[in-house]
Amino acid sequence: MYCLAELAEKLDLEFSGDGNCPVTGVASLVSAGPADLSFISDKKFTAQLVDTGAAVVILSPELVQQCPVACLISQTPYLSYARASGLFAKEPGDIQGIHASAVVSPGADIHPTAAIGPNAVIEAGAVIGADVVVAAGVFIGHGSRVGAGTRIYPNAVIYHDVHLGEHCVVHSQTVLGADGFGFAPGPEGWVKIYQLGGVRIGDRVEIGASTTVDRGTLDHTVIEDGAIIDNLVQIAHNCRIGKNTAIAGCAGLAGSTIIGDNCTLSGGVGVVGHLEICDNVHITGMSMVTKSINKPGSYSSGTPLSATRDWKRNAVRFSQLESIQKRLAGLEKKRGS
Amino acid sequence: MYCLAELAEKLDLEFSGDGNCPVTGVASLVSAGPADLSFISDKKFTAQLVDTGAAVVILSPELVQQCPVACLISQTPYLSYARASGLFAKEPGDIQGIHASAVVSPGADIHPTAAIGPNAVIEAGAVIGADVVVAAGVFIGHGSRVGAGTRIYPNAVIYHDVHLGEHCVVHSQTVLGADGFGFAPGPEGWVKIYQLGGVRIGDRVEIGASTTVDRGTLDHTVIEDGAIIDNLVQIAHNCRIGKNTAIAGCAGLAGSTIIGDNCTLSGGVGVVGHLEICDNVHITGMSMVTKSINKPGSYSSGTPLSATRDWKRNAVRFSQLESIQKRLAGLEKKRGS
Amino acid sequence: MYCLAELAEKLDLEFSGDGNCPVTGVASLVSAGPADLSFISDKKFTAQLVDTGAAVVILSPELVQQCPVACLISQTPYLSYARASGLFAKEPGDIQGIHASAVVSPGADIHPTAAIGPNAVIEAGAVIGADVVVAAGVFIGHGSRVGAGTRIYPNAVIYHDVHLGEHCVVHSQTVLGADGFGFAPGPEGWVKIYQLGGVRIGDRVEIGASTTVDRGTLDHTVIEDGAIIDNLVQIAHNCRIGKNTAIAGCAGLAGSTIIGDNCTLSGGVGVVGHLEICDNVHITGMSMVTKSINKPGSYSSGTPLSATRDWKRNAVRFSQLESIQKRLAGLEKKRGS
Repeated sequence: MYCLAELAEKLDLEFSGDGNCPVTGVASLVSAGPADLSFISDKKFTAQLVDTGAAVVILSPELVQQCPVACLISQTPYLSYARASGLFAKEPGDIQGIHASAVVSPGADIHPTAAIGPNAVIEAGAVIGADVVVAAGVFIGHGSRVGAGTRIYPNAVIYHDVHLGEHCVVHSQTVLGADGFGFAPGPEGWVKIYQLGGVRIGDRVEIGASTTVDRGTLDHTVIEDGAIIDNLVQIAHNCRIGKNTAIAGCAGLAGSTIIGDNCTLSGGVGVVGHLEICDNVHITGMSMVTKSINKPGSYSSGTPLSATRDWKRNAVRFSQLESIQKRLAGLEKKRGS
Repeated sequence: MYCLAELAEKLDLEFSGDGNCPVTGVASLVSAGPADLSFISDKKFTAQLVDTGAAVVILSPELVQQCPVACLISQTPYLSYARASGLFAKEPGDIQGIHASAVVSPGADIHPTAAIGPNAVIEAGAVIGADVVVAAGVFIGHGSRVGAGTRIYPNAVIYHDVHLGEHCVVHSQTVLGADGFGFAPGPEGWVKIYQLGGVRIGDRVEIGASTTVDRGTLDHTVIEDGAIIDNLVQIAHNCRIGKNTAIAGCAGLAGSTIIGDNCTLSGGVGVVGHLEICDNVHITGMSMVTKSINKPGSYSSGTPLSATRDWKRNAVRFSQLESIQKRLAGLEKKRGS
Repeated sequence: MYCLAELAEKLDLEFSGDGNCPVTGVASLVSAGPADLSFISDKKFTAQLVDTGAAVVILSPELVQQCPVACLISQTPYLSYARASGLFAKEPGDIQGIHASAVVSPGADIHPTAAIGPNAVIEAGAVIGADVVVAAGVFIGHGSRVGAGTRIYPNAVIYHDVHLGEHCVVHSQTVLGADGFGFAPGPEGWVKIYQLGGVRIGDRVEIGASTTVDRGTLDHTVIEDGAIIDNLVQIAHNCRIGKNTAIAGCAGLAGSTIIGDNCTLSGGVGVVGHLEICDNVHITGMSMVTKSINKPGSYSSGTPLSATRDWKRNAVRFSQLESIQKRLAGLEKKRGS
């Protein structure tokens, strides 16, 4: 619980209203109750602001007059709300120390302030930093390193020779460092190319649930500081993801592809291997990237949704586009002649 | 093992043949042996019916004459087969009681008839109902609830504040309640928006393997009664999935999208965030849904498969469609003038 | 560590240079140091060859003259490199015997040379062959079989009645044998069709991380010898994958689809159910396969990436293709008349 004045100080914002007003949680404008903090990030929700039951609302200066309750005044209300959300987050039941059921190698180096959950397994040579939380059932392989303040959720798997930076988050079932998909065709079938590289992940990287980041073939797979990656994303061997780049759910990157800084890949995007995408590129949902991109901007592929009956007719014509173009050119030629 | 007369009674069907005929399993018409139950759901398989080696076949009334063996007569043979399959299902090695290796908080409330498998971890405040099966290695977080008769398969992870209804199934590696992908852009990179909502799942919901259902940002993510969800599906924060809606493998829903009742999303479908899809909408495989849908029916997107050489030519023309349209309009204008 | 002459013998290659030259690792031409083996698989990298700091390079005969260091001469340098990579692979911390924390049923049959990691769970009737490695946290259900030399990585889940052949690899979080997505529509919602078949996987099959292979409905789901499957792939009930077929990340196969031998499905490919794809078919990335394919070759679908602004204009026209075709036909008719 905070009072309004405390919140203002913690968020470095001006406030209007009774500084002693207590705030115990965060809620949307519509569902907030008399001890909740809320926020408005777009004027189109002004009607909700006027009717809100919140105790306090984070808002931009021009909305102060329309706010029926106390407020925190921010030039960037959404960002201030994000910061406020951390004040009210409670990770219930935080574990402490090394649980008796964890299997920790005597050759692992566990910081005294780290917490290791039930049934976690940590192999020799692993280094676990200060204030790290390794939750129940997590596996951490030989020689892997987890930087200070990083949190790994239940049952995630970190293979050997994977380095995770500080203040990262790795959600459940995510796999860091499984073998890249490397095989050479031989006379009797595929011959495995052993994946001898590791994975190197920077600081403040957040990785969602059930995502896979493969280890490199010879060099490492790399994710740079501040990148954020959603659930069910595939990052193949030897990819490099730039700083603060965001990759949404179900996206997939083939091997050795390099993504620049501050890019966003929307859900379901696929990127072919061995490409380079420069900084500040944005790819819309489910697009297929088959060529390198060297110019910032927004890119797309795909076709629009329509009623299946209509779609079938149009889709047939897609396969005739080359002939449609030729027929059109033929008419133009006759016309011109 | 059942005899034919018992089966008829349990399935509430008429039968033809020797009521004492023993039945020990279920098989397709082609592979069924002399103690197997089989079924025919479409007349196009009549040739297989005539040659079947099954003991008993579930069929519609008009096929009785062509059945060489005993039969169970149903107006809905496929549905009757579904019900029969449950009679022959055996979940081998069902666990009982709380396994000695499970780590169950004294603050968890475990019904005496629930079974908790080896190395499962259950935190304080969790409530596990009657006849629930929590298999090996499953994690259940603080304050989460699992309703009576629900079964959770090995290594699935249920975070804190997730409520699962009665008679649900959750397959292995599925993650319920990981953080939604919420971040605000700040001057030095992404600022995490803590995900303070939970997940609420109704009764008789089945969720496949390696699927992710994220917790809500402020309110809950909701899946209503009777919904069925396949493997490797992503359901983002604050989505709401209606009753009896079916979502096939590899589909992905972005945040805050609402899907109505009795919808079907085929494999690989992607749905953009903040949309509403009304009841009784069907989306064909790999379609991309970028707008709300307020009319029941079948919808599609995508292009048809063709030989890569042909596809390349046509795909190039896709990027010229606007100019093709303009050229065509130009010709029409000249023609008309 | 090997000397050059040993490597030549093990790889069955001729060599040029000092046979006593020590080699301790593998690296790319660019990053290789003075005790590293490298390789060149394409003449376009000749400039890198000339400047390499490697100790030894695997190369084709025509590049021997341009190699500044010792070399191993191969008609298939990439394949020779793949074989060499296995010589330098070290799986650190290999486990031995049955870990004290593993929960192994007395009714399971574990070969004395098999290794069972911490917190692994093996149920009754399971058969674990010689030299198998079952890593930490893996679950193996009743009656499942793991052939000699197979390796299963941490936290993977193998349900009951799943047979894995010899010398297979299964990476972390992969699920073999969860229920297929089978339900019949009933008057009050979906009725589960119990999935009574198993999974049968041949020899030398490699399966990546977080992939799901569902059990069959009545018959088995089958993956034949030498198939390789990447991460986050969905293989539905009763699929059959042919020998040496390769399936890349994020691909999904709906139920009862049969893929022939020596096929390649690139990343994100989706295949509708109940299709047959013949041998030697190659599907490019993110393509949607909606019909059976009976002719070897390369197939594709999808549209090319472009700037979002351009894409929007062209995508609108996609939904008008049928009318564009009609307008064009109209002009042709007038022209012809």
